[in-house]
This record gives sequence, C-alpha cells and structure tokens, in this order.
Amino acid sequence: MKRDIITIGDLTNSEIEEIFDLADQFLREMSKPTHPHRIRGRRTDAQSHIMAALFYEPSTRTRFSFEAAMLRLGGDTLGAADPTTTSAAKGESVADTVRVIENYADVIIIRHPYEGAARAAAEYGDVPVINAGDGGHEHPTQTLCDLYTLRKESKSLSSANVMLVGDLKNGRTVHSLVYALARFGANVIPRAAKGLELPAEVSRRLIEEYKATPVPARQFFGGNDEFVDLDVVYVSSASTLGLVPAKQRPRLDGERDPGSPHRGIDVCYVTRLQGERLAGGEKRGADYPVIDKSFMSANRFRETSVMHPLPRVNELGYDLDEDPRGLYFKQAAYGVPIRMALISKVLGIRPFVSTEAAPETILYTREDGIVCGNPRCISHHPSERLHLRKKFWLIKTRPVTLRCIYCEHNYAPHCYGDVATRRYTTDLAELDTVYSDQIVFFADETQAREAGFKPESATERVRHV
Amino acid sequence: MKRDIITIGDLTNSEIEEIFDLADQFLREMSKPTHPHRIRGRRTDAQSHIMAALFYEPSTRTRFSFEAAMLRLGGDTLGAADPTTTSAAKGESVADTVRVIENYADVIIIRHPYEGAARAAAEYGDVPVINAGDGGHEHPTQTLCDLYTLRKESKSLSSANVMLVGDLKNGRTVHSLVYALARFGANVIPRAAKGLELPAEVSRRLIEEYKATPVPARQFFGGNDEFVDLDVVYVSSASTLGLVPAKQRPRLDGERDPGSPHRGIDVCYVTRLQGERLAGGEKRGADYPVIDKSFMSANRFRETSVMHPLPRVNELGYDLDEDPRGLYFKQAAYGVPIRMALISKVLGIRPFVSTEAAPETILYTREDGIVCGNPRCISHHPSERLHLRKKFWLIKTRPVTLRCIYCEHNYAPHCYGDVATRRYTTDLAELDTVYSDQIVFFADETQAREAGFKPESATERVRHV
Amino acid sequence: MKRDIITIGDLTNSEIEEIFDLADQFLREMSKPTHPHRIRGRRTDAQSHIMAALFYEPSTRTRFSFEAAMLRLGGDTLGAADPTTTSAAKGESVADTVRVIENYADVIIIRHPYEGAARAAAEYGDVPVINAGDGGHEHPTQTLCDLYTLRKESKSLSSANVMLVGDLKNGRTVHSLVYALARFGANVIPRAAKGLELPAEVSRRLIEEYKATPVPARQFFGGNDEFVDLDVVYVSSASTLGLVPAKQRPRLDGERDPGSPHRGIDVCYVTRLQGERLAGGEKRGADYPVIDKSFMSANRFRETSVMHPLPRVNELGYDLDEDPRGLYFKQAAYGVPIRMALISKVLGIRPFVSTEAAPETILYTREDGIVCGNPRCISHHPSERLHLRKKFWLIKTRPVTLRCIYCEHNYAPHCYGDVATRRYTTDLAELDTVYSDQIVFFADETQAREAGFKPESATERVRHV
Repeated sequence: MKRDIITIGDLTNSEIEEIFDLADQFLREMSKPTHPHRIRGRRTDAQSHIMAALFYEPSTRTRFSFEAAMLRLGGDTLGAADPTTTSAAKGESVADTVRVIENYADVIIIRHPYEGAARAAAEYGDVPVINAGDGGHEHPTQTLCDLYTLRKESKSLSSANVMLVGDLKNGRTVHSLVYALARFGANVIPRAAKGLELPAEVSRRLIEEYKATPVPARQFFGGNDEFVDLDVVYVSSASTLGLVPAKQRPRLDGERDPGSPHRGIDVCYVTRLQGERLAGGEKRGADYPVIDKSFMSANRFRETSVMHPLPRVNELGYDLDEDPRGLYFKQAAYGVPIRMALISKVLGIRPFVSTEAAPETILYTREDGIVCGNPRCISHHPSERLHLRKKFWLIKTRPVTLRCIYCEHNYAPHCYGDVATRRYTTDLAELDTVYSDQIVFFADETQAREAGFKPESATERVRHV
Repeated sequence: MKRDIITIGDLTNSEIEEIFDLADQFLREMSKPTHPHRIRGRRTDAQSHIMAALFYEPSTRTRFSFEAAMLRLGGDTLGAADPTTTSAAKGESVADTVRVIENYADVIIIRHPYEGAARAAAEYGDVPVINAGDGGHEHPTQTLCDLYTLRKESKSLSSANVMLVGDLKNGRTVHSLVYALARFGANVIPRAAKGLELPAEVSRRLIEEYKATPVPARQFFGGNDEFVDLDVVYVSSASTLGLVPAKQRPRLDGERDPGSPHRGIDVCYVTRLQGERLAGGEKRGADYPVIDKSFMSANRFRETSVMHPLPRVNELGYDLDEDPRGLYFKQAAYGVPIRMALISKVLGIRPFVSTEAAPETILYTREDGIVCGNPRCISHHPSERLHLRKKFWLIKTRPVTLRCIYCEHNYAPHCYGDVATRRYTTDLAELDTVYSDQIVFFADETQAREAGFKPESATERVRHV
Repeated sequence: MKRDIITIGDLTNSEIEEIFDLADQFLREMSKPTHPHRIRGRRTDAQSHIMAALFYEPSTRTRFSFEAAMLRLGGDTLGAADPTTTSAAKGESVADTVRVIENYADVIIIRHPYEGAARAAAEYGDVPVINAGDGGHEHPTQTLCDLYTLRKESKSLSSANVMLVGDLKNGRTVHSLVYALARFGANVIPRAAKGLELPAEVSRRLIEEYKATPVPARQFFGGNDEFVDLDVVYVSSASTLGLVPAKQRPRLDGERDPGSPHRGIDVCYVTRLQGERLAGGEKRGADYPVIDKSFMSANRFRETSVMHPLPRVNELGYDLDEDPRGLYFKQAAYGVPIRMALISKVLGIRPFVSTEAAPETILYTREDGIVCGNPRCISHHPSERLHLRKKFWLIKTRPVTLRCIYCEHNYAPHCYGDVATRRYTTDLAELDTVYSDQIVFFADETQAREAGFKPESATERVRHV
C-alpha cells in the first residue's frame, strides 16, 4: 500500500510525531554545530531512488528543499520547474503525466495551480505522491515544517494561542495549518486582512470535525482588550496534550490567571497576500496588515514567536530579521530534515510503525448526478474534466455533506434518488442512517428529472437497508 | 569513432537487436516483480559520465526518461529545459553551443524545432549526439521504444499490419517508425487525418529505399471491406524475418486464408495533431480521427494492440486505459531500459559488436550551387545559415537525387556543371555512373550561369571518369 | 571566515596562481589524451556538498560549466535556470532568497541582471557566494578562464599587448578582465565600437588603483601606424612579472626594438554587443567591428591569439574556427577545471594557503545621507531598496571617493557633516586624513539641510581626530 501525503489529514498525530523523531535523528547526525538547524553531507539511505518534482507553479524554497532533502538522503532528482516546458503545454492531463512519470521516478512531488490536482495525481499514480501545494487547497509539508519549528523551539501547542495574520482566504499553508493546530490542541485566532477571511468551509470543518469551539473575541480576550475587534477565536478541545510535553509556560501578560486560559499570543503566523490567486483585476494591499518591530513592541508580544512561510513581500518587516522572536528563516531551514524524514517514510526506507487508526470513511463514486461545486477544482480543468472519475467522501453530517476527494470542497446535495425505484426526494434528513450504494445525489430537482428520476409520492417513502 | 543516433537509419537491424538484448538484461536485473516493465535502483556503469540534455522545445517524457535512464545507469545529468534560459536566446548557433557543451558532458541529447538540427549538432560536436526529436523530421528513440514494446508483447513484425492513424504529415515519430517497420517486414497502412497525409517524400523513400510495394487498399483488404476508402497499403518485402521469431499469429478475421496475407490489423498506432507544427492561423481537428473503445469494438480489432507515443489530447479515448490492448503506458515505461541501453552503447560502455555493414554513401559537399529546399531545415535557421556547411547525400536514383544530410529533404537538381570545363548541362540521365567531385549541382540554369558556367554545346559532352 | 568571489579583486594574485595550480592538477589527473583541455570522470572531493545555481538571466555555458565542475568534483547541484519559475516572481528579495537557499546548499552561484546583486547575496548569506555575472558589473570566473587559457598557451602577460574589441561599455567580462590584465602587467588597448567605449569609471580605476599609464595611441604605436586612430593605450606598470615566467617573446613586427616595448598585438579579445543591456529602443550594430580571417590576415596579427567569451553573434567570423590562433573554444573548455578549482577553494576542500595581504579598506555604513548613484545598482531594485543596508568603500583619493560595495559605482560626495556638531561643509580637501565614523556624506547641500545640518561658519572648522 503506497502512502500519499496530500493533506495534513493523511497523517495521524502519531505518524507526525514519527516524522519529527526521524527529522531529529537526521539533525543530530548531520547538522553543523554552528547552525544546529542546518543539515550537511550526504547519506546513502535513498541512493537507489529517484524523486520527480513536477512544479506547475513558481517555487524556489519548496522545490529546492525537496531536492536538497533527496540529495542529502543520497537519492537523485528529476525536475520540471516550469509547466511551459513540459507536456502540459501540449494539453496533457495530470492523470496521464503521472502514469508516465511513475516509470521514471520512485516518488513524485507535485505543485499545481488547481485545487485537488495532487490527489488526482495520487489516484492515477502507482508511486507515492506528495503535495507541494495545490492551488488554495493545502500545503502539508509546510505545515509539518511549521509544527516542527515550534517543537524545536520548545513551544507546546497545547492551549497555545496562535494568531494567523493576513490572507487567510487563499493561503493554502493556512488551511493545512489550522486543522493541524486544532488537532494538537492549539487555539486559532484569525486576524485576516479585510475581505480575505478564513473560508466558511474551513471554519465549519474546524468546528465540526476538529471539535474547536468558536468563542467571541470579546469574551476570550476580555472586554477592554484591543483584540476585541477580532471576530472569533477557535478554542481547541483536542484531548491530546499536544506535540511536545507541556513546559511551564511563561506568563505572557498580567491578565492571565494560573490555571485559566491565558490571553497572550504564543505565535503570530504571518502570510503574504496570495496575489496570484486573486481574480483578474482584483487588487488588494492598501489595508493589508504589516507585522514589524513596532507592532511587536506591545508587551503581549514579548514572548511571541513570529512565523512566516516565506516569501514575504511587505507584510513582514525586515526589522524583525535579527529579532530572536523571528523564526521564519529557521522554518525554511527545518524544511530539509523534515522532508528527508517524510521522503524516507513514503519510500518505505523508514516505514511508519504507529498503529493509530485513521478515521473511517465512506466513498461516493457515481458518475451520474452531481459534480464538484468548486470552479478551481482539478475536476473542472480542461484537460481533466472529460475523464477524471468523480469521487466524494460522504460526511455523515445532518443533512449529509459530500466532500470532493480532490479539492475537499464540501457540497450539500439538494435531493437524492434510488437507482432501483428511479424516484428522488428532497428529504435528506435521515440519509446518514440509510445510505447505500443505490443512492445517487443531485444538485437540484431539474438534474434529477433530466436523469430520468420522478419525485417520490407522498405514500411511497424511499427505504434502504 | 563516435556514434551519433540521429535517425533510425543510423542503426543497422543487428544493432537494434543488440540494444534490445541489453534492455532485456537491464529489465531482468532491475525490474520490480509487480511491474516487469519498470526499472528501479541505480547501477554504476556510467558513474563517471555526464549527459547534457538540450531541449529547445517542450518535453516531459522524453527528457525525463533520458534523465532517468542516465541516473539509473549511475551517471549524472545537466539540462536546459527551456531555450529562453540559454544562450540560444542570445542568438547562439547550434554549432557553437555543441562545441561548448561537449566540454561539459560526455553525451548530448538534443531536441530542436528545426529539421536537421540534431545532425548539425553531431557534425560539430566531438561527443556522441542523440536526437530527441528535430522538428517534423525524426525521433529515433521513440521508434526504438515502439519496436521494443512490440517485441516484449511477443508481436512479430514480419507481415504484421500496422495502421498509422492521425497526423502523418508532421508527426516525427511516424516518419522514424514507418522506415523501421518496412525494415523489419511490417506492412504500413496509413489512415491519415484529412490534409495530414504521409508526405510524398516519405512514401517515395518507403518504396525506393525500403522496397515496400504500394498496393491499393481495395485490393489489399478486398472489395467490400470498410477499409477500401483508405488509399494505399505499403506491403513490406523485407527479407528479414523481423524483430522476433514469428509466432503462430492469431486469426484476426474470417477472411484470412492460411498462408496468404491476412487483412486484420495487428497494431493501431495513434498520433496526436502536431498543433505546434501547423502554419500560423491554420486550425484542424474537427474531423480528426478518434480511437476509443467504440472504434476498437469491431471484430477485426479484437487482438489489435493500441499504441500512442503520448501525450494524447482527444484522439485516444480514456476508455481504453484499462483495456489490455492498450500498450501506450508500457511504451512510456520501456523508454527507460531502452535509453539506458542506447546510452551505454554510444558511451562505449557496452559497445556495439555486430558487423552488419551500413549502406555505402556518397557525400556531396560543394558550397556553391544548390541549397536545401526545405524552409524548416536547420541550414536556413538565422543563426546557422551563414556558417553551416552544405552537405548532401548523393542518391543514385535516375535522375540523381540530393538528400540534405541535416533534414533529409530530397532535392532533384535541374542541371549540373563540370568545374574544370565550366560547362553545365540539364541532361542528368547518366549522372549516376559518371559522378565525380568535379561536379557542381544547380537549382536551375540561371543559378548555373550566375556561377559563371556556360551551357554545354551539342558537340561537347561532359565526360567524367 | 567564508570566501565570496564577487569581483576579480576578491582574489590576490597569489590566490589566482593557487587556483591555476589546482586546475592544472585536475587537468593532469582527469583529462583525455586526445583533448588535453577537457576533463572527464568524477572525483569524490565534494561528494557530500551541494551547489545551488541561481540564474536570474539566461545562460548555458556558465551555468553548465559550474554544474559540470561540481559534478566532476563528486558533488550535487540544485538549480533555477529561470527567474520566472522562482520566488523572485513573487517579489522576493535577493537577501531573503539567499537566507533560505543557504539551508539547502553549501555554495551559491548567482547571476542577476542588477549590478551588485552578487555582493548583496554574499552580504546576507552564510555560505560562500560566487558571482556568475551581475548586470554590467563583473564576471570574475570568466576572467579566471581567460587568464588561465593564456597561461596554458604559454602566453606571458608581462608587457603583453591585449586589444579589447567591441562593446566595452556593457560587457561585464571586459571590466573584470581589464583590472586583472593591469594587475598581471599587460597593456590594455581598447578598440571599442562607437558609443560603447570603456566607462570613464573603469578607465579612472585602471589609472588610479592599478597604476596603468594612459599613453596616446599615436605615441604607443608610432606615427604612421594604422592604430593611431585608437584613442589611448593603458600601459601597465605592474611590478609583478605576470602570470607565467616570461618566455622569449616572438617578434611580432619589424618595428620592435629588443628591450623596448613592442607594438604588436599579443591577444585580440572580442566581445559581442550586449544587446540585452541596451536601453529600450536603442539599436546598434551597423558599425560594430567584425574580427574574421580577413581582419586577422595582417602581419601584425600573425601570432595573435583570438579570444571571445562566447556566445558570439556576428562579430567573430566562423572562418577563424579552424585557425590555430582561435582560442575561444579552449576558453570554454578550461571553464570546468577552473571552476572545479575555485569551488574546491571556497568550500574549504583545498583551502587557500597564500599569505599575500589583501589591500586595507575603510567601510562607510551610515543609513542617512547619500545613496548609490547607479540606477542599475541592486540597491535600487524594487525588492531590495527598502531593506538593503547602504555600504560604501571610502577611497582615499583627493577629494575622497565613495564606492558602493555592491555595484562598485564611484561617487564623489558634494559635502559632508559632523553628526556631533550637526554642521556640514563642502570643503572635502583634507578629508582623507581626518575621516572618522562621525562623518556623514551628502549628495548636495539641500540633502544636508534636510537632514538638519547647518553650514559650517567661517570661524568654526570641523576637526576630527
């Protein structure tokens, strides 16, 4: 069974800890005393493996850190840095590309502008696929670097307050990160630029799946705090104690009672405006928040780690570069040992050993009926839409939710039919208990009727076992 | 003596068999039991060699498969995937580029939009050059993969019926392939998209050099066969029994008499529309043939292998991907062992041993007189035309044909002169017996006169020894 | 202490000799007998090191020769050949890029269109940086190849006459070269294309720092020589005997008296028009000099080596390719052993051992006051100008000169102030003896007054210890 790493959800908490332990080992064995977060030299672990890096979007740090990781492991790399120099320029589908490349490489790293492209690659390829960023969807290896950086800095995530600043709508690193934070017990404090708020879908998922509790900022921070103008704080209720054993947390401000939740900020995570994801003509930036030495001079930020996935534009001041609170260059440095560990895991050189079970899932795969509602989903890409198999996770919310397995966009179907009786109904209330593979979902009644289904009469009720 | 692989004609049949035997050996030693056509691991054969990949046109599979092959052999690669990032952007000639790169690498792989560019590179470089596609001219390593795939599938080429579908005009893989098919005894059945027929030159060469016999489709397939609307079938008369020992061929349709040529299709080779080679503004595709499950459901295709050099656009249905007749992903997979074997051969790590003689040739190299008549020939490229030495093969047809050594475009000179007597004549009839290096060819009498030649008088006849 | 190679001035003469000796050793051990200037095989010296090549401008030969050098040393390479595929496309600064890349690689090679970009990279990175060309500024490794080629050809530089032909204004290889020539005792004879003369700044530096004496061409060549229309010859007064022991120099023309300076040309160094550096719309080339067999047929060129950094366009005739005087393909070939040696040195595998002292320097680093006057300086790049620290070398000319440490553009300040007294003066005459870190320089009096400085009154004189 090959392992693909497309979202941070593809890894259990114990697997993430395994990756971090292996990264620790690489750092111990290979790092320079002067720079304990940097790795040097070359191992032989992966000396007979080839990694292919398929980058359909610009990248320096992600591509280079994957390549450096593979080289440090002793392996080799193939790379396409530019989609215009590849067969994509001839209109080739991701599915075809990956079925060809799997013959040339033992693991595929992919970055793509369409959401869900990495999962599509994984579905069609026989070798492990790692997502290096798919549109605005996820960027799980960045999240691993972020979490690992906090662990190396002895920051416990349990009950930590992590403020996310900037473009929370389009920043894929943010989406991977908030789920991981919730899973490891941290509170998520969104501080979005105007109009670039966390998508409702991410917020809903935080609450419904990751059991975070939305608390009004006024209540969380207290009534006369300057942060009351923030909208909401997602307070984690994760049972896990988090990524590292809790240390005696330093008092962050005078308001904090021992034993009660503190209101200081442990981490300020800044992201740039994702200009390349703005719709044509859209322009932002006038009121985009800037985190610099002046902003960070407030007492509440005295012990706050400043993080940024880089590259930055103007949202993060150069005057923080020498500040010990700034961790962003370390984040980049830790990318190598983390990716070395991850590649070792998925190549099976150091296989995962933990037995924590992944959550059970139900797959919905009917080709008729609904399609994904996200226009930026890979399933709507001109090269893919004619052949990519439609697949959804069926989430047992009430009413039921369908989640595209590619882009993870949620979809609330309007009605469903029974393929045996050819009847449909808009009553989805009890569906989570009666679901079977006889069921087909529709976007609306028109679609159902066009597919040859008739409305269910009052007397006949669809019943499935 | 370095070996360049520019056209499939640069390899004798026995050398092709040698390459295939070596690829077999690599597959035996390195392939995974689950995927017998895929290669893993790294050898040490080429560990002190560097391969340079010069790609002046987009490519994924060809470039990656060359690079993967070199890495699997233990060697290293340098690469330029994009002409705009190289000195070509500063107007450098292929001749200069290759004379520089030969200092950095031990073998050069080149892809270029101009026909004949690979031969030009080979002429100027001291290290072996392999053609990875030069305009619409040839793509010999693709042809090696195609033939090898058939051999691995135990398809005999002897008397096999190979139908070529799609763009037969611009598809360079097709041109390399048809010559190889004829050499190994297969019948070539062109089924071109309208306006994209096999060039007259290729057809003529099939007949004149490869001894194929054009037979009307009506006669070949029988009068009431649906294939009668095809124009012609090139029936091979190659004496060789073909690439693999003939097996008991399955009966493909009821019409076939044992012992007589069968009329079923053994291989259906599909190619995409070479959009990048269409003249500006030209647009095709409305009536472009599509090979899909429905097309392939006819009884005559029951045992037909479907091949495609990939990437595909719309001409090959995704519904054939799971069909056992579809060999196109295997073709891509075999690219690695084939290219490993070829690189080993030209680097001299596993030198060719066969002694089959290559056909004798006569070279015509006068700088005055005619130039190549093909506007897409590298000799007309702005960076090359001022310096590239004019060279033609002199083909002893009646009247004589000149074939540009770069693009292999044939040229029928209108007259020729004798440099000693400064007389010219338009009577080329006996030239094949009297040719000497005193002769200079002209496109027409004007050119001859401008070069200072006078017409031969009735009484004086040019006589050469 | 890391070693960056940004300008040829970063190496002392003895260090250059060390590099050449090491290159000799690599050539001895690795070259093919048939091509004594080409290197083959792979060493293990750098087997645990990674080189990153950051090319923000097109390149084939420089990038490939660095990569080939690193591979031949046994190391590995990461590369970005195209700025549009990197984070630079997202607006990332060189300073940030290099602080990220230093985690992935052990040495960084950079090419950039802005002058001074390589020094900026070196200032921010913790690993060695080698300049592979920064705008029109310098290209020191090309110069090393040029000098090494002359040494291998047994050309002594001591009193040699080196004629530089073509675009002397924008050609960065020329600027690195003229300083090196002067340091090793050669005379520099500029023969620029019209409007593309050697910049006044380079000329001044040749005279002031490298102690070359400008001599009118009429005087140098004699009154009736055809070269009298050349403007000036920079006659070297370097005390060093040059790169190789002087050999019995061949008589180049009849005019030369033994013991007196000869007037023949030892080296003709041709450069192409740097079209990519011309201002928009500017077009040249009509009267651009062309060096070909005809030009070189004069008796004075009988023993003249023809060099060119390549790529050429039309300024160097292909008819010289087979001429033994043409060294340009050898220049390219020597790029590999030279860069192998240089990489070995800066990685500390073969550390420099010579003890020749580098010249002492004074650094001026005030953030207020003047900025670099060169609009193509990296300090004015949109991504850099907000954060790059201003730094100048203070050159003790009279009056004092400030030289930007990035682009090396010289700047003559108009006035300076004392930060203690807040007074400024335009009298810079005695400044070289009185300089202290209390001093701030201004472009003009307006700038001084805007900074809150008042003019010094007649009675008070600024006095510094």
